[in-house]
Amino acid sequence: MKKVNLTEKFTLFSEHWSPKVAGEIGDYYLKLAKLKGEFLWHKHDVEDEMFLVVAGRLIIKLRDGDVELLPGEFLIIPHGVEHMPVADQEAHVMLFEPKTTVNTGDAGGERTKTEVQWV
Amino acid sequence: MKKVNLTEKFTLFSEHWSPKVAGEIGDYYLKLAKLKGEFLWHKHDVEDEMFLVVAGRLIIKLRDGDVELLPGEFLIIPHGVEHMPVADQEAHVMLFEPKTTVNTGDAGGERTKTEVQWV
Repeated sequence: MKKVNLTEKFTLFSEHWSPKVAGEIGDYYLKLAKLKGEFLWHKHDVEDEMFLVVAGRLIIKLRDGDVELLPGEFLIIPHGVEHMPVADQEAHVMLFEPKTTVNTGDAGGERTKTEVQWV
Repeated sequence: MKKVNLTEKFTLFSEHWSPKVAGEIGDYYLKLAKLKGEFLWHKHDVEDEMFLVVAGRLIIKLRDGDVELLPGEFLIIPHGVEHMPVADQEAHVMLFEPKTTVNTGDAGGERTKTEVQWV
């Protein structure tokens, strides 16, 4: 059992749109991700997903409008809700989601990350 | 679906050792708590529990030593592991845990909070 320092963990990887697992709590993962640019529209049919911004600025596009997240702000996307994360500059984000969650949800495609990578 | 600002939420309550729900992700709650002083030794037989310090300093006492958490640091206590949170000064903490988690775990007693309170 070891504590995790978020700032330190974010120094250990540089890829964008490739969430890394930093902890497991029951059947959920706490993941860290660096986001920059546009992702893609998708939804998770079963899993709710939380985005908490640690650094930078993240826009979550929803079909009925955009939500802007600054450091210390979070949004929970309920299952079934289409969303697209967008970050003009690099944003550092913490995610809580069930272990079964796939980053691209129902959209699939080449940006899908199937391997569980720890940081 | 509404974003949550952690700093703002922490202005809305002042009680110590009384976690407030700030979001639900599947069958988990994201809770916010102000901690000051000593809690009590307890464990959760089933639930893993995450403590992330947002402000201040939290010591998690474990049977084999103490872990000090500063802002931006988290510790996951696996189910079955005895722990006692202690904060010399007021600490602001984010918790992520199954909805079934009771604050006092197996210890019970008068500091148990049975009502789910949202903030």
